Amino acid sequence: MTIYAPADSMNTSHSTSDEPVLSADAYKAAFRNHAAGVAVVTADAGDGPVGLTATSVSSVSADPPLLIFSLSDQSSSSPTIARADTVVVHLLGADQLELAKLCATSGIDRFADLALWSRLETGEPYFPSAHAWIRGRVVSRMSAGTSTIIAVEAIEAKLSNAPAEDPLVYHNRTWHRLGEHSAIRT
Amino acid sequence: MTIYAPADSMNTSHSTSDEPVLSADAYKAAFRNHAAGVAVVTADAGDGPVGLTATSVSSVSADPPLLIFSLSDQSSSSPTIARADTVVVHLLGADQLELAKLCATSGIDRFADLALWSRLETGEPYFPSAHAWIRGRVVSRMSAGTSTIIAVEAIEAKLSNAPAEDPLVYHNRTWHRLGEHSAIRT
Repeated sequence: MTIYAPADSMNTSHSTSDEPVLSADAYKAAFRNHAAGVAVVTADAGDGPVGLTATSVSSVSADPPLLIFSLSDQSSSSPTIARADTVVVHLLGADQLELAKLCATSGIDRFADLALWSRLETGEPYFPSAHAWIRGRVVSRMSAGTSTIIAVEAIEAKLSNAPAEDPLVYHNRTWHRLGEHSAIRT
Repeated sequence: MTIYAPADSMNTSHSTSDEPVLSADAYKAAFRNHAAGVAVVTADAGDGPVGLTATSVSSVSADPPLLIFSLSDQSSSSPTIARADTVVVHLLGADQLELAKLCATSGIDRFADLALWSRLETGEPYFPSAHAWIRGRVVSRMSAGTSTIIAVEAIEAKLSNAPAEDPLVYHNRTWHRLGEHSAIRT
């Protein structure tokens, strides 16, 4: 067993109290045991479309229909998404791996290929190839360290008529496909 | 850390706009395309240990070491976790499926089996069988509909010396094991 205790050197100005915090390396090592579903979030706050791949999307409740995700201040898309009134959250299947990669790649124009994206009637950019997406309004923002937590109330959703796809999952720098092959029979 | 919580924006009975929200059924159908890692959160706010299985845990940043999860007001463990100063977040491997089930079952004493849990030196209840856990302090709470979003700053972590385990994932009422068999080779 390895115990990571906070080092004094990590007790930086980031801490919200006088207590020391865990080092970034130890924190990452622990979170390597956690997998996450993959989503792409798109928005346009008036100066063009942005989109980013997020592994932080989670459902808060169905009634009211609320989801949250977090935005790193270091992402180039974050300022736009953080001030957008509405966003589109695409919940990706394994067949949309290329879309996940596209919106996770830095230094490229993620909307250069006009065949990949379109706009909803309400104006938001979106990727029609996603098996499911939810359009919602941003109802709350919470600053957390160098990130922002965004809460979204769902307004509408689109589901492909095709059978539900195997979801795309990300874990420890590897993409995974869920399905019958990964199910635990209990 | 700052909380931006517009007075009634999270209350759907006082919606931020005149737009209708998505029905619970439609919202659930869309989210059926999203998978999630599985965690167990434990705490003791002074009146005994509580623990719940959460699929909403996500990492916000490593520096500062911050994670979030959401608590439904309908969970019996929520009041305790919502007011605790510190919590333990166990990131579960597939071999800890029984622990996930235990803390997801209503109407039982999840701490009845004294062989399953213990207390850290700092007092928090925890499950030593988990492959990895993080102890942290609650640094922010945000009300979201009928739920509460909890932000936690990591103080210490424990990792088993065993090789990293296949993570446990939940999707559409089924448990999954990630591993070589689910990896997408790109």
